[in-house]
Amino acid sequence: MAKDKVKPRILTGFMELLPEDQILFNKIYDTIREVYESFGFLPLDTPVIELSEVLLAKAGGETEKQIYRFSKGDNDLALRFDLTVPLARYVAQHSGQLTFPFKRYQMSKVYRGERPQKGRFREFYQCDIDIIGNGELDIAYDAEMPAVIYNVFRKLNFGKFTIRLNNRKVLNGFFESLGLENKVADILRTIDKLDKIGKENVIEELEKLEVGKKEIENIIEFISIEGSTYEKINALRKLNIENEKFNEGVDELEKVSNYMRAFDIDDDYFEIDLTIARGLDYYTGTVYETVLDDYRSLGSVCSGGRYDNLAEYYTNSKLPGIGISIGLTRLFSQLKDAGIIKAERSSLADCLVVPMGIDMSYTLKAAKAVRDAGFVTDVYYADKGMKHKMKYADKLGIPFVAVLGEDEVKTNTAALKNMATGKQISVSIEDIGNEIKKQMGE
Amino acid sequence: MAKDKVKPRILTGFMELLPEDQILFNKIYDTIREVYESFGFLPLDTPVIELSEVLLAKAGGETEKQIYRFSKGDNDLALRFDLTVPLARYVAQHSGQLTFPFKRYQMSKVYRGERPQKGRFREFYQCDIDIIGNGELDIAYDAEMPAVIYNVFRKLNFGKFTIRLNNRKVLNGFFESLGLENKVADILRTIDKLDKIGKENVIEELEKLEVGKKEIENIIEFISIEGSTYEKINALRKLNIENEKFNEGVDELEKVSNYMRAFDIDDDYFEIDLTIARGLDYYTGTVYETVLDDYRSLGSVCSGGRYDNLAEYYTNSKLPGIGISIGLTRLFSQLKDAGIIKAERSSLADCLVVPMGIDMSYTLKAAKAVRDAGFVTDVYYADKGMKHKMKYADKLGIPFVAVLGEDEVKTNTAALKNMATGKQISVSIEDIGNEIKKQMGE
Repeated sequence: MAKDKVKPRILTGFMELLPEDQILFNKIYDTIREVYESFGFLPLDTPVIELSEVLLAKAGGETEKQIYRFSKGDNDLALRFDLTVPLARYVAQHSGQLTFPFKRYQMSKVYRGERPQKGRFREFYQCDIDIIGNGELDIAYDAEMPAVIYNVFRKLNFGKFTIRLNNRKVLNGFFESLGLENKVADILRTIDKLDKIGKENVIEELEKLEVGKKEIENIIEFISIEGSTYEKINALRKLNIENEKFNEGVDELEKVSNYMRAFDIDDDYFEIDLTIARGLDYYTGTVYETVLDDYRSLGSVCSGGRYDNLAEYYTNSKLPGIGISIGLTRLFSQLKDAGIIKAERSSLADCLVVPMGIDMSYTLKAAKAVRDAGFVTDVYYADKGMKHKMKYADKLGIPFVAVLGEDEVKTNTAALKNMATGKQISVSIEDIGNEIKKQMGE
Repeated sequence: MAKDKVKPRILTGFMELLPEDQILFNKIYDTIREVYESFGFLPLDTPVIELSEVLLAKAGGETEKQIYRFSKGDNDLALRFDLTVPLARYVAQHSGQLTFPFKRYQMSKVYRGERPQKGRFREFYQCDIDIIGNGELDIAYDAEMPAVIYNVFRKLNFGKFTIRLNNRKVLNGFFESLGLENKVADILRTIDKLDKIGKENVIEELEKLEVGKKEIENIIEFISIEGSTYEKINALRKLNIENEKFNEGVDELEKVSNYMRAFDIDDDYFEIDLTIARGLDYYTGTVYETVLDDYRSLGSVCSGGRYDNLAEYYTNSKLPGIGISIGLTRLFSQLKDAGIIKAERSSLADCLVVPMGIDMSYTLKAAKAVRDAGFVTDVYYADKGMKHKMKYADKLGIPFVAVLGEDEVKTNTAALKNMATGKQISVSIEDIGNEIKKQMGE
């Protein structure tokens, strides 16, 4: 590097990919988008920069510390740190022009200036769907969310996964029935860690929270409920807890489970997990997590839940909703590190057209024929030797090369080479597309 | 608005769309992406935030004033203001891992804190393609760029357009031959305005630049050259200018024009325009502008050109390239204001499934059948009256509604209503998809 040059580099905590990985990333992104759209979710694209006053109406604590915040002119600005706050602002701002229930997806970058660590990013994609009701929102939508998750992850094909389901009313009602309503948040945080720290440590932490011995027993009995979805629901009913919220929650759990079956979600792919609370304090009903069975250490790859009031900081309208989010940048990075996904090719091109000292018009006639047949077509124009051009195709992993020399011009053909098999045949240029189709099918 | 609420709003100069417009925007975005990919361009997604030192290695003057720049921790950061500087940084940083010629597209938001005015945005999408050579880049790529533009705008169907072509060597060589090499930049800026201010004003401005009377005559003669592409090239040759750069430029213009024909670009869709210089100082050869013939006042909707050295601020490697850019946010806003495009529907859904007091499993069986047939399918779950549900379909512009009542459950059918014709027929739920396909075809 010469002294007068600036070293080309990016900031730590920012993901930037080489083309082969970007192709893979986009394939996943496009699959998620396709499934979101197939369920009728509408696209949204909010600004990255908003007024701090608006974006931080609710925030505080950790979130506020992580925010990218700065001034420009007289404005106090911030970069969005999630897609939920902008959604709340959007719905409050445009409620008169929207049709409810309002189903939207947004798959965009968000910004958090966290201390960077493995698997944590300062700029990352969130792929969110939410359904917002005006005043009310039917419980059936609580089952549509996992149906979307199910279709997304079946299509992404990362292996077997499990959607874990719970209901905050069950949790809150249960702790109320034990007279522990003042410690709910702390207890939830503790039992949420069961998977990570084990039962013994949970008991120890509950003792530290000054939960009584009998109540700890009840809690452990509660989170130890085993069995199928319906066995768990029956076991919850058999606890005979006389708390309205609890019983409402159990009813909802049962309904959502029934609906999920009606959505054709395989029983093997979901389960009730009474330890799930989700950290965020605004969930009020159904909550979800999703784990890849063979890679549980990745944690939840898709989470969310039901909230009572999306936009209370901006409007008096009651806007209940339900939503889920996939943290795609982190997921991509984890899946790649774990070897679950890997780049397959460094190019989108199906065919490289390679002219060898011939007229441009013949070259482009051939390229157009292949492109018009629906194949992504690249052309190597530079006047280089055959070896050089083949190396380009090889490095980019382009599966077919159509070589055009003087003989081919005379006979209106191309020498079509299959790079995987090495087989080369002569085809008329109108037939290159068909031949590629045929060989791809083989 | 209650006093304790934050007013939901966004900053001026930022474009945020309602769902119907977002659907339209995405359709245009997807079309551009599809054409870019069909020519073998590779996707890239660089960070929005970069180190100021890196991003501003070249910048100065106006650009630097417009930048969003701020500190976080010890870092002096900035938001990208275009996609070319990040490309230069990327290619310099990863040159060892890239295959040249490196063809990439990036369609992302960039940030400029300009004083907002009609049609100017502070956050806007640029849709860029560039081809970077390692040391050299064949002139044929100069014709591939307009071929891509041609395919993009044919497909976007905004009406007849013209790709205007010029070459900076022709301009620079011509002014050198007049001994005006020290005033080239000022003169170019002046003649670039010909369309806007007219010939008389151009002459007046040239006089202010102290260009001699004879030279002004020569310049006016030069920019007044009329005729077809080949007549213009012949006229340039007949000027008998003995300047190597000039003649090299004319040769390139001729070559690129020939190649563009070989690319099957209709002669009506391109012309040589000797007044085009493009403001940016790094163009060194072919330059382009694109105008919509019926809406010339919109200015150029797609511009770009050839540059000698992309990444000189980061590396000693010589990286010549060629690129074009569509400023999509501005274009979208202008086209909408001019009534050239308009939102067609407020939903992506082809069919709304409407259960009327029936079992959830039948509802979802029907919805799945329609979705599996390839149609975007929404379901109205809430327990509301028929009128309410039809209004939802109507407001969102969903073309088909499948009503499911007790009679339909008994007969395994749906009452499928075509919202445009009002026609309603009874079909088995397995056939809803086929019936929609049939009626859409009619």
